[in-house]
Amino acid sequence: MPEEYKDSKFVFLANTAPILQIYLLDQLKKPKFVAADTMNLWINNNLADLKRLMKKIDCLILNETEARMLANEHNLITAAAKIEKLGPSVVVIKKGESGSIIRQSDGQLFVLPAYPATIVKDPTGAGDSFAGGFMGYLAGQNKTDFATLKKAVAYGTVVASFTISDFSLKGLTKTTRRNIDSRLKELRNQVKF
Amino acid sequence: MPEEYKDSKFVFLANTAPILQIYLLDQLKKPKFVAADTMNLWINNNLADLKRLMKKIDCLILNETEARMLANEHNLITAAAKIEKLGPSVVVIKKGESGSIIRQSDGQLFVLPAYPATIVKDPTGAGDSFAGGFMGYLAGQNKTDFATLKKAVAYGTVVASFTISDFSLKGLTKTTRRNIDSRLKELRNQVKF
Repeated sequence: MPEEYKDSKFVFLANTAPILQIYLLDQLKKPKFVAADTMNLWINNNLADLKRLMKKIDCLILNETEARMLANEHNLITAAAKIEKLGPSVVVIKKGESGSIIRQSDGQLFVLPAYPATIVKDPTGAGDSFAGGFMGYLAGQNKTDFATLKKAVAYGTVVASFTISDFSLKGLTKTTRRNIDSRLKELRNQVKF
Repeated sequence: MPEEYKDSKFVFLANTAPILQIYLLDQLKKPKFVAADTMNLWINNNLADLKRLMKKIDCLILNETEARMLANEHNLITAAAKIEKLGPSVVVIKKGESGSIIRQSDGQLFVLPAYPATIVKDPTGAGDSFAGGFMGYLAGQNKTDFATLKKAVAYGTVVASFTISDFSLKGLTKTTRRNIDSRLKELRNQVKF
């Protein structure tokens, strides 16, 4: 790891072998908030490593199938609570076009639909864009209280909605901070009652 | 139809043959807001009748599969817009545990996740309970502006969440208006960011 990355405060361990995620994490000096992504492959074949990783992170981001598999529990809210018992105090479950859930180990819960996009060309990268928007907002705010986490989920949702609007990186490269903030406002309005 | 029902103002035509829904509707004197439910069977086999019905109603409530089938369109927001062109100025699309969408022909949109229930015993009746909560709230308010429609969707969501919490009518019979209002508040909080 390049020296200048070692004092990163907000760290996202993208999906790879948990042993490699641990190796990366151990090179960091004093991160403030560490989130990791994982997948079915590691849950099935490298569960011991994944469990070691989970004790070292603050937040696990995974999709609904993976959450059910990891927790051995169909209900996603209960699954999130079970995953928190394995280490991370925050669990984010991505449900694709059905939105996402974030739960904190104190029981606080936030549910958000996906942005109601009418242009969906390619969902590839939606999950990583979500994580990027989520982590980027937290790092920008330098806070991880639940109100900030909720807003970070909304930013992740909006960033992902731009990613899926076109192929490859085209959806994102056309996007400005102003577009993102404007869609965030729109989404906030669309869920308000 | 019993005489005393004929001046009903808020009318829900539950799912049955569209020809029968029209027959019922024609007996009403001057309804203020008419919603109808439908299903794949009528979309496939009785589309002409269903189209006649759609010209007479204000709101169509249907699930996501039915919406896609009726509009011949995968994207649900676009599907709702297409359905509005067939008559109803309001379309509600139920997505089960993924929540619901309501769209008005002026383009206003509201998206709501399902209530994040941890106890789900039997989804039977969730759709009709949703419609009941939705229509009951509108009738109680005697209004159908979009702000009221959004709140009606939230009431429908909450009533359905009680239905699925137990078998048969047990979930509903244990429910009071106070429980419903308290869960509505909870849901409002859970989607706020």
